[in-house]
Amino acid sequence: MKAFVMREVGETAIIEKDRPEAGPMDAIIRPTEGLICTSDCHTVHGAIGEREDLTLGHEVVGVVEEVGEAVEEFEPGDRVAVGAITPDWNSAAAQRGHPSQSNEALGGWKFANVKDGTFAEYVHINDADGNLAHIPDGVTDHEAAYTADMLSTGFAGAENADIPMGGTVAVFAQGPVGLMATKGAELLGAGEIIAVETVPERQELARHYGATHVVDFAEVDPAEAIMEYTDDEGVDAAIEALGADETLQDCIRVVKPGGTVSNVGYHGDGEFRHIPRAEWGVGMSEIDIVNDLCPGGRVRISRLLKLLDEGRVDPTKMTTHEFEFDEIQEAFEMMETKDDGMIKPLIHF
Amino acid sequence: MKAFVMREVGETAIIEKDRPEAGPMDAIIRPTEGLICTSDCHTVHGAIGEREDLTLGHEVVGVVEEVGEAVEEFEPGDRVAVGAITPDWNSAAAQRGHPSQSNEALGGWKFANVKDGTFAEYVHINDADGNLAHIPDGVTDHEAAYTADMLSTGFAGAENADIPMGGTVAVFAQGPVGLMATKGAELLGAGEIIAVETVPERQELARHYGATHVVDFAEVDPAEAIMEYTDDEGVDAAIEALGADETLQDCIRVVKPGGTVSNVGYHGDGEFRHIPRAEWGVGMSEIDIVNDLCPGGRVRISRLLKLLDEGRVDPTKMTTHEFEFDEIQEAFEMMETKDDGMIKPLIHF
Amino acid sequence: MKAFVMREVGETAIIEKDRPEAGPMDAIIRPTEGLICTSDCHTVHGAIGEREDLTLGHEVVGVVEEVGEAVEEFEPGDRVAVGAITPDWNSAAAQRGHPSQSNEALGGWKFANVKDGTFAEYVHINDADGNLAHIPDGVTDHEAAYTADMLSTGFAGAENADIPMGGTVAVFAQGPVGLMATKGAELLGAGEIIAVETVPERQELARHYGATHVVDFAEVDPAEAIMEYTDDEGVDAAIEALGADETLQDCIRVVKPGGTVSNVGYHGDGEFRHIPRAEWGVGMSEIDIVNDLCPGGRVRISRLLKLLDEGRVDPTKMTTHEFEFDEIQEAFEMMETKDDGMIKPLIHF
Amino acid sequence: MKAFVMREVGETAIIEKDRPEAGPMDAIIRPTEGLICTSDCHTVHGAIGEREDLTLGHEVVGVVEEVGEAVEEFEPGDRVAVGAITPDWNSAAAQRGHPSQSNEALGGWKFANVKDGTFAEYVHINDADGNLAHIPDGVTDHEAAYTADMLSTGFAGAENADIPMGGTVAVFAQGPVGLMATKGAELLGAGEIIAVETVPERQELARHYGATHVVDFAEVDPAEAIMEYTDDEGVDAAIEALGADETLQDCIRVVKPGGTVSNVGYHGDGEFRHIPRAEWGVGMSEIDIVNDLCPGGRVRISRLLKLLDEGRVDPTKMTTHEFEFDEIQEAFEMMETKDDGMIKPLIHF
Repeated sequence: MKAFVMREVGETAIIEKDRPEAGPMDAIIRPTEGLICTSDCHTVHGAIGEREDLTLGHEVVGVVEEVGEAVEEFEPGDRVAVGAITPDWNSAAAQRGHPSQSNEALGGWKFANVKDGTFAEYVHINDADGNLAHIPDGVTDHEAAYTADMLSTGFAGAENADIPMGGTVAVFAQGPVGLMATKGAELLGAGEIIAVETVPERQELARHYGATHVVDFAEVDPAEAIMEYTDDEGVDAAIEALGADETLQDCIRVVKPGGTVSNVGYHGDGEFRHIPRAEWGVGMSEIDIVNDLCPGGRVRISRLLKLLDEGRVDPTKMTTHEFEFDEIQEAFEMMETKDDGMIKPLIHF
Repeated sequence: MKAFVMREVGETAIIEKDRPEAGPMDAIIRPTEGLICTSDCHTVHGAIGEREDLTLGHEVVGVVEEVGEAVEEFEPGDRVAVGAITPDWNSAAAQRGHPSQSNEALGGWKFANVKDGTFAEYVHINDADGNLAHIPDGVTDHEAAYTADMLSTGFAGAENADIPMGGTVAVFAQGPVGLMATKGAELLGAGEIIAVETVPERQELARHYGATHVVDFAEVDPAEAIMEYTDDEGVDAAIEALGADETLQDCIRVVKPGGTVSNVGYHGDGEFRHIPRAEWGVGMSEIDIVNDLCPGGRVRISRLLKLLDEGRVDPTKMTTHEFEFDEIQEAFEMMETKDDGMIKPLIHF
Repeated sequence: MKAFVMREVGETAIIEKDRPEAGPMDAIIRPTEGLICTSDCHTVHGAIGEREDLTLGHEVVGVVEEVGEAVEEFEPGDRVAVGAITPDWNSAAAQRGHPSQSNEALGGWKFANVKDGTFAEYVHINDADGNLAHIPDGVTDHEAAYTADMLSTGFAGAENADIPMGGTVAVFAQGPVGLMATKGAELLGAGEIIAVETVPERQELARHYGATHVVDFAEVDPAEAIMEYTDDEGVDAAIEALGADETLQDCIRVVKPGGTVSNVGYHGDGEFRHIPRAEWGVGMSEIDIVNDLCPGGRVRISRLLKLLDEGRVDPTKMTTHEFEFDEIQEAFEMMETKDDGMIKPLIHF
Repeated sequence: MKAFVMREVGETAIIEKDRPEAGPMDAIIRPTEGLICTSDCHTVHGAIGEREDLTLGHEVVGVVEEVGEAVEEFEPGDRVAVGAITPDWNSAAAQRGHPSQSNEALGGWKFANVKDGTFAEYVHINDADGNLAHIPDGVTDHEAAYTADMLSTGFAGAENADIPMGGTVAVFAQGPVGLMATKGAELLGAGEIIAVETVPERQELARHYGATHVVDFAEVDPAEAIMEYTDDEGVDAAIEALGADETLQDCIRVVKPGGTVSNVGYHGDGEFRHIPRAEWGVGMSEIDIVNDLCPGGRVRISRLLKLLDEGRVDPTKMTTHEFEFDEIQEAFEMMETKDDGMIKPLIHF
């Protein structure tokens, strides 16, 4: 079968690979639609170290091709979605309430990390009963592909932010995860959502997804602008959706005492992140700094699909470009540079 | 009346002051026993800026001398304890669940900060009904004085740490707050409590208060030692009770994915605290970093008094020295250097 | 001044009363718009016992006429909203996180219970700083009047229901509180909202406020219909917004193991409510049964006003009738019978 | 192999059965010590319906005899404990945070319910990696046997009760589960623990496990006595550990507004449980009524073993009698009547 792989750090290609096989609890799916994630680019640049001919990708939906003998909930032909994170559900971390951290830190992240990813003609799914979800008839494959990571991660940013109904939230950066954090804040009853972004198309999407005010960080200091906008009260919650030191610091600067900083940004470089001591209230401000790795699992993905089915969110507005699978390298290269205003490229298999 | 004050940064003295007066909701109490806190030393050294003739101290118990006309629960002659933090209970922050942050960051901290502290013959208490607590007959003034800050802050360190019953906790530093965090972890059902400390007397007290293992940071790297002791699993929760950058970093290093870092240390200097990026799981480890400013208020202090009344904790083991009020300057100077193994000095009024 | 009172059980009238006076922390407001609540009817029928010439009403907005000397946040002329529940913020219950239960069970409920209510030319507000909220320019008095009880109670029904994003909720009864519970569930990210109601106008409003499916209890057994609709899985949460034994039982019947029954109905009669033992999993189903008394206070009401200001909800669609203050008796009588499809009558002062 | 079974409702016997076999994720263990539970008696009396030759028992520890090919954490010869509840960890309910409700209500309860129980020479364990736990060297088999149900259920009663540090708790009934709820309340920092019990030996044990006050329900009305003892304030939390209607009602009667009723009693008969409407605050008291089915799983059991290993609790004081496996019928009959002051009988295999 064909697979789009990272040959080594810095080099990608479509190559031939053996088709994966399903163990007793596993499934093999045939992707229909997928999305490229900026973190695939990080991976190719070496963010998680060297890999050899590792299949890339973690956002797809597809059709079940084969299931292991112990799989009860799925059968060949089923239309299914699968999370970017596929936990081991009986691991100690999952029993502790942190399935994404199965077995080791970030251990639920298997695709394109510790095993082949999803950009191939056939994809192996561990614990199919625990990690697949049926796609309702009313949801397209295109829509469903967004549940794998963008909806799950972005919404988690809002869920963890402990937003009171009618409260005020700032969302730093309006890439696809930030846009879904903005939408998540709206879906969770925020009263005021301040989006920090400079790209006009992303500002516009942010407003579409629920932002009530936009701060352009290229024109003003965003922390100052947010404090001014909130009459120096600050916000109940700030969501970091970029993965940068400065942005994390700004989150701490704009949150009220007792508020929450919720990180969903992938902090890919640098030895440290910095907590500004004074704004942190010398360690006594009651500001929580929390974070998450994209929740996965059948229940999670099914609930996200339900929101799509009821039309509560339309993530396809983030799809700026479409490609066939054999054009994936071109899509991947555009994603690196965000050329032509790319937000999310859709891959047809 | 006599008051022990900070004349200016770096200088203390006992001076004469006017006796405070009670507004309609306030009370005036006459202290009987008090404790000096290391943070009084920080204050004199300028940690919160310049002050002129500000009365020091925030840990006392005493007898009610006078109450305002709207006070309903207390009357002259009552033996009472009072928290170091005396919130404005109808403030927005209190309604948001963060009374210690009344009106502004750390705004519930009034004693020896924005108004005269407790080392005087008479002490003003705002919102007496909300902030005083009756001392049960079975509790001595000496014991009760520990509720103001040491029990409330130390226990909060454990309460916020989200310790599962039978879980594993590391407590960094075994000063009085750290010792009470250790005891708090024990009182909340921790299975294993690792105390980090080098002073032998404090190590011994830590074991008395529930530590099941002690790591001497002068002999080993504490983070490495804790990881080794836990078979590289790490701890469910780590409590920072020192206020140092390195210690906070170590907390993040030893906590399991999905665990909690609970800060109760007062971080008095430096522009930043540092989050080690890799150990923080590049922002996706699901490690929460939380903190607290000593909870106050009638309900809180009453519950702590109940624990004393039932003999669940004996904080007086931390009292290494005793002084009369007119010797307070000597006590204060010893507290700065921790001379003679001082942990907590008790002041008799 | 004129006041609409309950002369005794079963009898109402507009009478002359002395204008109330403000203590140091209080305010007097002059109502502009008010709403009649079915619970006013219960009161007149004796639900809380005999009262003599007690002013009725607990849902109004108005203009500040006078403030006590200790009031800092409000001044005469301010447009303000006030919760139906006006807690004592320094009470033990408030410190425990339950301000509506100040001093005694339901003790925050003062209007038309332990003191004169809001249907008068001047209304006394205890703890003005804690209990009033400024109305933003973009919000009408008519809209703002809904924050006092309908929004706060209905939304609390949803907030307490612990609804997962994309989860399934059933809301029993679509009176004004039930409608706002439906809207609250939508605002909190429910995926599917099943409204139980038989009156066509209320069914239609339920759909407007977010119901995705309606069950007509006059045509089918609602518990059976909900189980069938959810493929025998049941719902994540059920909200009781009627106050009837049978409805509460149905909530328990339709909730999944591990789900939540959230009561906001006022259970006005009968000695007991009944928990069906088998459906409760013989006490081991992990179904929580929770409830709430309308949250009040400046922070709560301000957040609700923010949602109105951002256009997140339009409660005025529930206003079916309007009356002048001197017609209030007529409005009150219609409210008893819900004649002419009355949902909420608006009173102009 | 020999197994102690329920031949049909009302009849037990030791019979010969085929030894169970392990599927790929399962294990077979050879019990060493077990405990009889009152719920075994309920089962024989038909509480869960008819069963034919079903092996009884759900509380044992033992040695691993055989593991399936996919089992990674255990191997033959390991000393292991196992929860009474053995969830399917990838089930939807487990993903929702309720593993004990796997697949259906109470679905994690498999032993002596939907499959053979533990009173046999060999016992089948589903999902061995998820459900077994290694017994530390410092813990005896006798002690460890208590983790299966008594510690896990009793402690859960306290954990769910949301007890504030220093708060007040009432525990209704001091059978083994109630005693462990009492101990759990102590381990979680309760300030005052009121045990309701009439049997002198159980009263004494209750005091040993942390009760600070005992109410003898045979001499006084327990709800009245508790209200009087708490100066009419009531308790922060009440734990039901009997499974009776009257006791559950009393819990609601003695809990403060805003408090919690935590049920761990098995309510074996009657169509309904009754909520006293007035004491429930007409549905607006903010009293939560919660419950639990004995948490199981490797992490849970390991944490309980840690508490045993550190000597935080000695459950063996509840062992009043000891029997060999071939005397189990006699033990079982005594358990029905609680003859000779039986609390828990230990079975040696």
